[in-house]
Amino acid sequence: MIKKMNHVAVVVDDLEAAKRFWVDTLGLVLAGEEHVASQAVDVAFLPVGDSKIELLQPTDAESGVARYLQKRGAGMHHICFEVDDIEAALAKLKTAEIQLINEQPVLGSDGRKFAFIHPKAANGVLVELYELTAE
Amino acid sequence: MIKKMNHVAVVVDDLEAAKRFWVDTLGLVLAGEEHVASQAVDVAFLPVGDSKIELLQPTDAESGVARYLQKRGAGMHHICFEVDDIEAALAKLKTAEIQLINEQPVLGSDGRKFAFIHPKAANGVLVELYELTAE
Repeated sequence: MIKKMNHVAVVVDDLEAAKRFWVDTLGLVLAGEEHVASQAVDVAFLPVGDSKIELLQPTDAESGVARYLQKRGAGMHHICFEVDDIEAALAKLKTAEIQLINEQPVLGSDGRKFAFIHPKAANGVLVELYELTAE
Repeated sequence: MIKKMNHVAVVVDDLEAAKRFWVDTLGLVLAGEEHVASQAVDVAFLPVGDSKIELLQPTDAESGVARYLQKRGAGMHHICFEVDDIEAALAKLKTAEIQLINEQPVLGSDGRKFAFIHPKAANGVLVELYELTAE
C-alpha cells in the first residue's frame, strides 16, 4: 500500500539559518518555499533521491508545530509516506485498532488527501499518509 | 554531494512489536534483519522507494542508542544520506565550521565508510553521511 517516502519533516526555529546548513553547506537543492496557512508554517522543500527533506518554521506561536518546537526543540517532526489509496489504508489501520489522529482523510488546499497516524501507535514516530490525487 | 536518503532510523524498545506495526499493519516489506555488534543494536531493514526505514533495538543497556531510548523514548533517531565522496564532504563541513561527531570517516564492518554530523549543527537532527565503497 505504500509507494515511497514522500518526505521527512524537520521543525526549525529559523528557516534562513536552517537553509544555510541544509542547502549552502550540506548541498541539498532548494526546490521551493511556501507558506502553508492551514498549518501555520513556512516550508522549504529540499528534494533528495525520490524523497524530500521539508524544513518547517512555525509562523504562529499557538500552532501544533510551534508547540512541538517549544516542547521538544528543533528536530525531526514526521515521516510522510505516499499511498495509492488513503481510504483503504485508513480502513486497514482501523481494523488493526491503530490509533489515528485523522480518522478520515483531510483534503489539503492543493487537492491532496492526507491523514496522520498517532505516534503512540508507531514507536513514537508521527506518520503521515498522503495520497496524490489524479489531476 | 548527496545522492539520496539512504535511510531513516527509528529506535524501538521491542523490535518484534515494532515489526507488527511497520510491516504487518502498515505494509512495509521486511528485507532483512541483522545484529550490528559495533553499535549493539538489532536492525530490521524496511525498503521504501529508493530509501529505507531502519528499526533499531538496542541490545546493550550502555550503548549510545540505548541511552537515547532511555532519555527520549522511542522515535526517529537519525537520517542517513549517501554521498559520493565522504572525505570531500567532511572537508567541506569542516571548512564551514560544522560540528562533527566523527572528524574522520569510520570504516564499518561491511566496508562502507560513515560519519555523523552533530545534531547541534543540523537543527537537532542527527545526520549520518555514508559512502558506498566500490567493490
